[in-house]
Parts: sequence; C-alpha cells; structure tokens
Amino acid sequence: MKITPVILSGGGGTRLWPLSTPEKPKQFLALTGDATMFEMTLARAMDRDFFTAPIVVANAAHDALVKAQLAEVGIADAAIIYEPCARNTAPAIALAALAAHDVKAPLLVMPSDHLIADVAAFHAAIMAALPLVEEGWMVTFGIEPTAPETGYGYIRIGEELGTGVNRVERFVEKPDAATAQAMIDAGNHAWNGGIFLFRADIYLGALASLAPNILAAAQTAMAEASRDSGAIYPDAAAFSVSSADSIDYAVMEKADRVAVAPVSMGWSDVGSWDALYDIGAKALSNNVLVGDVRANDASGNLIHADGIRVSVHGIDNLIVVANGREVMILPRGQSQKVRDFAKD
Amino acid sequence: MKITPVILSGGGGTRLWPLSTPEKPKQFLALTGDATMFEMTLARAMDRDFFTAPIVVANAAHDALVKAQLAEVGIADAAIIYEPCARNTAPAIALAALAAHDVKAPLLVMPSDHLIADVAAFHAAIMAALPLVEEGWMVTFGIEPTAPETGYGYIRIGEELGTGVNRVERFVEKPDAATAQAMIDAGNHAWNGGIFLFRADIYLGALASLAPNILAAAQTAMAEASRDSGAIYPDAAAFSVSSADSIDYAVMEKADRVAVAPVSMGWSDVGSWDALYDIGAKALSNNVLVGDVRANDASGNLIHADGIRVSVHGIDNLIVVANGREVMILPRGQSQKVRDFAKD
Repeated sequence: MKITPVILSGGGGTRLWPLSTPEKPKQFLALTGDATMFEMTLARAMDRDFFTAPIVVANAAHDALVKAQLAEVGIADAAIIYEPCARNTAPAIALAALAAHDVKAPLLVMPSDHLIADVAAFHAAIMAALPLVEEGWMVTFGIEPTAPETGYGYIRIGEELGTGVNRVERFVEKPDAATAQAMIDAGNHAWNGGIFLFRADIYLGALASLAPNILAAAQTAMAEASRDSGAIYPDAAAFSVSSADSIDYAVMEKADRVAVAPVSMGWSDVGSWDALYDIGAKALSNNVLVGDVRANDASGNLIHADGIRVSVHGIDNLIVVANGREVMILPRGQSQKVRDFAKD
Repeated sequence: MKITPVILSGGGGTRLWPLSTPEKPKQFLALTGDATMFEMTLARAMDRDFFTAPIVVANAAHDALVKAQLAEVGIADAAIIYEPCARNTAPAIALAALAAHDVKAPLLVMPSDHLIADVAAFHAAIMAALPLVEEGWMVTFGIEPTAPETGYGYIRIGEELGTGVNRVERFVEKPDAATAQAMIDAGNHAWNGGIFLFRADIYLGALASLAPNILAAAQTAMAEASRDSGAIYPDAAAFSVSSADSIDYAVMEKADRVAVAPVSMGWSDVGSWDALYDIGAKALSNNVLVGDVRANDASGNLIHADGIRVSVHGIDNLIVVANGREVMILPRGQSQKVRDFAKD
C-alpha cells in the first residue's frame, strides 16, 4: 500500500528571527538555497510510485504560503487541514489520520522545518520500517547523534526487530550535558527527530486507549468540519477542547509496539543561525553568504541578505541577517540571543 | 553693510555611503540630530540683523531637497543658483558674486557639508574679520588643528593685521604626515576649512586678474541665465567652458591681500563614518546610536539606522550603517573602505 505523507507545517518559531516571523515561519523560507524547507519536505515524498497525495496540517494564517509553495513543487491534489488553533502534534496528527483515504494507510509524519541532506538514506530507512508498520508497529526515525546536544530528546535503541529496525528501549527527555555525553559514549542512542511512520488506524487506536480526549476532540472537529475545494476546516470549538500534547508524550512514550529506525541522513532541525552556518556551503574564507552580499577581508561569517544588499569589510565570525525591515548582528556561537530581540 | 551668505551645496561625496549618495549627498542628511548639515549651515547665518537672504549654489538634481530644507528652516527669499554642471568652487562662487544685490556686499562663503559646534565662536571670528573685509581683504577662516591630518590644506599664519585676523603667510597643500606633524609642532598653522569672507567686487576683481576665463564664463552664463521665481539657471554652454578650479587654487593662493581669521569652533567636515563616531554623542558603553537601534552587550560602535531597525548583541568597535536598501559593516578606523563599496 502506498504511503500517505503527513506534513506538519503549523510551527512558528522565532529562533531564526528576523527572517522567521509568526507570519512567515522558517519552514516557508528559502534559507539554504532556492527551495523552502516546506517545499523540500514535500519533495522528499513526491514519488507517486510510493506515495499518495500528501495531507498538510497548517495554520490558516499561512494559507497563501502553503498554496503557493504546493504549486511551486507541482502538487495540486494535497488535502490541506487548517488547524483552528494550535494544540501540539498529537491532535494535529489525529486530524490527518482521520482524513486519510484508507484507515490502514501508512502515514509518514514529517515536520516541515527540518533539513535532510541524504534523502536516499531516508527513503531506505522508510522501506526498512514499512513491513513492521504494516504489521501494526509505530516507528520513529532515530537520528544518529553527532554531538551531545541537550536540546533534543533521545531514544535508547533496543533489540533488533528486523533489518534496520529496533525496538525502542526507552525515550529520554531533553537531557543535561553529562547525561547527553554518557548516551553518546554508550553509543546505542539516537536523537528523536520527530519523524514517524505508522498506520492511521494504529495511531487512532493508540489515542483511543492512551489519550481518548484528544481522539474525541479530533473526531468531533472533523465530523463538523467545513470543506472548500481540498481544504478542510475542522470545527474550532470542538478542536479547542483537546489537550495540547506532543505525539511523543501522548502516544510514543506509552504505546507498546514502538520501534526505531536508526538513520544517518544529514538531518538538521535548523534550530539557530549557528546551525545554518554549520550546514551552509562555505565560500572563500569560510564565509556562508546568502543573497546579495559583498564580503571583503572577512572570514567565518554567516551573512544572510533577503531583499537588501549587505556589504562588509574586515569582520570575522559574525552572524549578520538583514531584510528590508530588520538588521541583526551577533557573534557566531551566540545565536540563542536572537530570542531577546524576537520577543519585542 | 549686511553680510550675504553664500551656501555651496553642490557636493556629492561617497565617503558616507550608503546614506550619502549622488542623489542625496551628506549635506542633505540629518547625520547628527534632527537637522541636516545644509539646514544647520543656513541657520548659522539667518539673523537678519547681520545677514541678508542667502544665495544657494546648488545642483539642479537636488532641487526638491534644497527647496524642502530651505522651507524647513523658514527661508522663503533665498536666491538659488542651479549650476548647469559642476566646475569646482571658484566658478560657483563667481556665479554667486554676480548675483549679489550689492557689489560691495561681503559674501560669507560656506560649504554646506561641515559641522560647527560653537557657532558663537564662528560669529565672533566673522565680526573680527569684517573691518578688513570692508577694506578689501579676502579672509579665510583658519581652523585650529587638533591632529596632524593629511587630508586638509594648511595655512601658515603670518603677522597680525587686527584683533583676531592675520596675514596669510602661505597656503600649504595637503601635506605628508611628517610635514603635518611639523606644522602642528610649530604651532602657527591652521587648517583651511573652505569658509571665506570677502566683498563680491573684490572677488570678481581678483578673478579678472588671476582667472579671467572663469570670470568670463560666469558673466556670460549669468547674462544669458533663465530665471524662474527666485531660481537662476545660468546658461549651460557658457558656464561649461569655465576652468574647474578651486577658489584656493584660482584665487586665494595667488591674491595679494589675503588674511586668515584663526578660530576654534568645533569644526568637522564629517569626512568619514569614523569622524561621525568621534563627534557623536556617546550613549552607554561608548556607543553612538542613531535611529532605531537595540544594542546589548555592545561597546564602542557607531550604529546608524535610517528607516530600518538594527539589533546587535556582543559586537564591539564596529561601524554599522543601514537603510532599507543597503547594510554596511566594517571596523572603526577603517571607514575609508567605504569607497570600495560606494563605487559600484
């Protein structure tokens, strides 16, 4: 059976301010090249030999962005579910599972604000996981960790269930630095990248037993949804009573048959300007330059110009981000300070 | 007799790029506060007890800026001479001298892109020079030098002719560093600030003997000028044949009765972003911040935001200049590098 991509595009982070804003969050920005992360996420699951038309769960405020970027990659038959309010991932995925054409369809749940450099490795991991998924397992993809990051959840990898798929021994919430290092040293851990593969009916069944409030809210919201040429507007009053829980907390950490497909695929959640420097293509003098930028006698900088020209001389190891309204400058390694500016 | 201010506003430098552009050069920018340098130059000679209406020599391309800024300071009766082409200062001042209502009127020639912090000192120097000017002397104001600058011409101050006025012993073209230091050490030298006071007829007489080609071109251009409600458009063909010489080269360095009024008046030609830092009001941590700027853990920076917001964290001793089209960043002390960017 073909896999149904479920694209979660409701996020609205501020860690890539000033480019990322609530009106145009990072998944809709072309941060690394010509395509946006939303478009690249769609493109990863566009081969109709393996995938059906996608289901996109979006914020209604991003309606125009979603439609324009679907058109940009040539998808005319997506089902778009506009969340009436943000209720975290478990309810969002419930809406998508209820909209699936076939209750046994495997759903490939993907955040739209991550990068995957090695799409072939991703596809191979999906194919490795698919037999277990069809048997009723829920699979999360475990990102091979490259550093003792404290900002991610971890998965302890258990016994092998099949080639490339292992039982999840346990989920570990965002750890402290020592715990993170210990897991890296132990070697049998992966980052939880928030990408999942499971049958719609299996997910809904898990919700029924583990989070019935979420399932009921989603069912009522979809039963009373209005529809308009491919767009689905779940009922706001019904959906708003749902708990706002992540799929990890509501389902994955508590369900029985949960597996992990470990994969090394050049994954990044592009969680900061520093991360974008790390993954960016280095020009001369280790600068990462995006947009209309002139850099003389400058090294190690990330300079991102969007609709404005940036000219620098003699600066090193800075992050410079500018559009027609805002300019932000800080040293590399301090991009978490963006939050101080973005909140105003 | 009242003094007639002659405001030279034809300049179009690029040293304060990206704010200063040929379309809107620095004299028309509010770089240090609410008023532009052109407006501040007008305001220095607006007291009608001592000054007549000004004569403004301008570039026709700056027509709207000139008129708007004259209106801003409340001057409705200026004579505006639009140079048909740029021919340096000697011909420009010749046009103004020919437009003076009284041939014996003392003309106070002022570039419009300089700052004078102590206007009272300037006025005192003018008053000190006026008796000699009325006798037929040509006076230049000698700026008390504060450093061995190599970018200015110098004046060697000779015998005293009257209180606060001395004979010019000699003009020194832009010196090398050793020569500049020797003049500073000697103590009897001033910078040539390009501000002059002389009678219109004396200047025109000096031109007749020292630069008759310039006088003839200016006379023909004015005789064949078109006029339109206060604006004078000298004939382009006639004016274009004039030599393009500075008043220093064409007249002051060669004439006989040339005096200097030494003055310490907080003068700056605002020749670079570094100069603007030096004269700027220092906020916390020695930052000079102009416009909508947020600076956290930052020190010693000049940050100039024009129609855009600039947010910085953890940067020191940089020059950051931004408008809606351009962002420029370089270290303090290197503002001469602006030329590399401005020429494109």
